[in-house]
Amino acid sequence: MPSFSATTGGAERTGAPQGRSVGVVQSRSAHFDAPLALACGRTLPQYDLAYETYGELNAARTNAVLVCHALNASHHVAGFYADDPDNVGWWDNMVGPGKPLDTDRFFVVGVNNLGSCFGSSGPVSINPATGEPWGSDFPLITVEDWVDAQAQLADRIGVAQWAAVMGGSLGGMQAIDWAIRYPQRIRSALVIAAAPNLSAENIAFNEIARQAILTDPEFHGGQFHAYGVKPRRGLRVARMIGHITYLSDEQMETKFGRQLREGLKFSFAPEFQIESYLRYQGEKFAEYYDANTYLRITKALDYFDPATRAGGDLARALSTATCRFLVVSFTTDWRFPASRSREIVKALVRQRCDVSYAEIAAPHGHDAFLLDNPQYHGVVGAWFGRIAREVAGTPSTMAAAP
Amino acid sequence: MPSFSATTGGAERTGAPQGRSVGVVQSRSAHFDAPLALACGRTLPQYDLAYETYGELNAARTNAVLVCHALNASHHVAGFYADDPDNVGWWDNMVGPGKPLDTDRFFVVGVNNLGSCFGSSGPVSINPATGEPWGSDFPLITVEDWVDAQAQLADRIGVAQWAAVMGGSLGGMQAIDWAIRYPQRIRSALVIAAAPNLSAENIAFNEIARQAILTDPEFHGGQFHAYGVKPRRGLRVARMIGHITYLSDEQMETKFGRQLREGLKFSFAPEFQIESYLRYQGEKFAEYYDANTYLRITKALDYFDPATRAGGDLARALSTATCRFLVVSFTTDWRFPASRSREIVKALVRQRCDVSYAEIAAPHGHDAFLLDNPQYHGVVGAWFGRIAREVAGTPSTMAAAP
Repeated sequence: MPSFSATTGGAERTGAPQGRSVGVVQSRSAHFDAPLALACGRTLPQYDLAYETYGELNAARTNAVLVCHALNASHHVAGFYADDPDNVGWWDNMVGPGKPLDTDRFFVVGVNNLGSCFGSSGPVSINPATGEPWGSDFPLITVEDWVDAQAQLADRIGVAQWAAVMGGSLGGMQAIDWAIRYPQRIRSALVIAAAPNLSAENIAFNEIARQAILTDPEFHGGQFHAYGVKPRRGLRVARMIGHITYLSDEQMETKFGRQLREGLKFSFAPEFQIESYLRYQGEKFAEYYDANTYLRITKALDYFDPATRAGGDLARALSTATCRFLVVSFTTDWRFPASRSREIVKALVRQRCDVSYAEIAAPHGHDAFLLDNPQYHGVVGAWFGRIAREVAGTPSTMAAAP
Repeated sequence: MPSFSATTGGAERTGAPQGRSVGVVQSRSAHFDAPLALACGRTLPQYDLAYETYGELNAARTNAVLVCHALNASHHVAGFYADDPDNVGWWDNMVGPGKPLDTDRFFVVGVNNLGSCFGSSGPVSINPATGEPWGSDFPLITVEDWVDAQAQLADRIGVAQWAAVMGGSLGGMQAIDWAIRYPQRIRSALVIAAAPNLSAENIAFNEIARQAILTDPEFHGGQFHAYGVKPRRGLRVARMIGHITYLSDEQMETKFGRQLREGLKFSFAPEFQIESYLRYQGEKFAEYYDANTYLRITKALDYFDPATRAGGDLARALSTATCRFLVVSFTTDWRFPASRSREIVKALVRQRCDVSYAEIAAPHGHDAFLLDNPQYHGVVGAWFGRIAREVAGTPSTMAAAP
C-alpha cells in the first residue's frame, strides 16, 4: 500500500502530539457474497471491503466508532504497518490511546470505500466476471452505496449500533447519511468540515479535474491498464486543482507567498515555490492514485444531496434522524465554508435534533480537519468523553456475530 | 479575427445600455523597426502592434486615453467590424459616445499586447528570422515590456501624455506601470479590479492552467503549428480553471446551483448545468486562443510586482508617480479581492498621491469590471468628466507626429 499521510492537502501537522500511537496495525479484508444494489441501478454481485480496527470491542458491543474517509484516503486511519513504519494512518493525531477518539475506550473501525483503490472492490480490482481489472466498467457509486456496504461490514463485525460515525469532508457526508437512513444503528454523528451538498463552484472544480483525466490520451476510455499506462498528466492536474481548494488563501500566502526558488528564469520551469510544491503534490498523487477511482469519488461528492429525497428540504430529509450530532467547521475553509455547516445545523435545529456546533478558528483552510488544533481536538475529545460515559453501561442490542 | 465579447468570463451584461456604439471600427497595425529590449534579456528586433482608435484626438493632443486589456482580450475595445457586426468590442459598454469613457470627448486607443494572438507580434506571427511562426521561440514578456511598446505606439500616434491609462485586472497593472515608469506621460490612471501583484493562490491557478497546456501531447514543446494540431485539451482545462476564478461563488450558485440538464445519468457526460457551461466555455476558448500566448500572458501576470524594484515597498515603488489615481474594486471579486486594491490605495496614500477609491457592491465576482453596473459606470464617468474639463484647456507638450 502506498504511503500517504493526509486525506486532502499537504498542510503540516501542528501542535504537540497528544496521546500515543495505536502502534502496529493490520489491514484486513471482508468478502461479501450477497449482491449489493447500487443507486445507479446496477448491482455488485460480490465485493470486498478493506478495513482496520483499533482498540477492543466491549462485551456489550456498544463502543464501536466508524471513521469514514474523504476523497483520497483509505481505511488506514491510525497506526502504522510493521513492514512500512513510515506509512502512518491519515488521522493518527485524532485516533489512538489518550487521543480525542481514545482507542483505550473505543473500538474504532476504518473502512476503504467501494470504488476506491486501496483494497476494497473498485476499478483496480479484478472483475470476477472477466478476470480482468474492472477499470471503467466499475459502476459509479454514491455516498448511500458506501453506507450500505459499511452497514454490511458492521453486521459482519457484530456492531448493531455505532457509538459514533465520524468523518471529515466527504466522510462527514457519510455520517449524515448514516444518521438519516440507519437511525437505529447510530448513536451520534460527527460531521466535520462537510456540507449538505456541493455548490456549483464545488462541482465546477470537480468537473475540471475530471476533464483533465478524461481527456488525457493515456486514459484510453478508462481501460488504460490494458495499455500498460496511466493518465498521469490528467491525475497531476486534477490533484493540483484539488489541492488549491484544500488550503486557505492566507495559508498559501504565509507558506509560499511570492517566494522564488532561484530568481526569475523567464521559462516555464518552476520559478515560484508554490509552483514546485504543486507539481510535487501532483507527481506524488499520480504515482499512487487510480484515475477511475478519482472520477468516481468526485462524482459521489457531486451526487450527494439528501435534501432531494425530501423535495429539497434538508430539515425534512433529516426527519428520520434520531442520533445526536456534532458539527464542526473551520473559519478559513473555502471548499466547505462554515456557512455550509450552519445549513446543516439550522436544518437539525428545525428538526429539533440534538446538535452541537463548533466553528474553529484555524488558518489552514479545509485541511484543518486533519490537523491537531487544540480547540478542535478538545471539542471532539469532550464529545467522545460524554459518549464513552454513556455507552459504558448500555446493553447490547445484537447477538455477537462470528 | 475571432469573436469574443469579454476579457474574462462569460457573465452577461446587465442593466440598460447607456450611450451609443462607436459604430464601425477598423483594426490598424503599426510596424516598429527599432529593437525593443525586453525584461527577459532578449530583444525583439522589430515588431507590430495591432490597435484601434475611437473618437478624435484634439488639436492640443491632450484627450487621448489608452485602454489596456487583460488576459485574453485585444485591441478591439469598442464598436464592431463592418464585415463582422456581431464581433462587438469587449468594453463596448464602457467606451462610446455618451458612455463613461465618452468618445465624443476623448480619443481612445486600444492596443493588442505583444505576445498576444490578435494581430500584434506574438507566438502566432511570423519570426522574420526564420519565416516560420515564432511558436515557443517568442520571448516571455512582462507588463513592463508591454508598457514600453505602448509608449512607442503613443509616440507614433502623437500622444505625449495620456489623459488617462485605464485597465481592468491585468490591464490595471499596466496602468500602474505607466504611472511609475512614465510619470510625465500619464495624467491619470484607472486601476480597476487589479492587484499590486499575484498572491500564491493566483500563481497556483495560473500554474495549473499552464501545466494543463504544457503536458498536452499536442503541445509539442510549443511548436504544435508544425504538426498541424493545437493543444486543445490543455487550453480547455486552462480556460475552465480561469473561468471559475472570474465568477463569484454566489453568482455561480445563482446562475447554475445544482441544476441538472436531464436528471442523473451516472456517467461522465455532463449532468449538471455548470458542467455543460464550463465545457462550452473551454471548447470556445480552445478554438480561438493560442496556447503559447496563454502561457506567456499568465507568466506576465505572475511576474508583475513593482514593489520588488523598491525592496518590496510598494509605496516607495510608487514614489515616481505623479498622476492622479482612481482605484476600483468589487465586493465579490475573489481573484483580486478588494483587500488587494486597498493595498494599492494605502501605498498611494503613504506616498501622498492623489487617489480616489471605490469599492463597488456587485455579485459578479472579478467579471464585474466588464459589466455595466450603474454605480461603477457612474464613478468612472464622473472621473472622466473631470478629466475632460481639465484637458479641454491644456496646451500640447509635443509636436504633432505623422
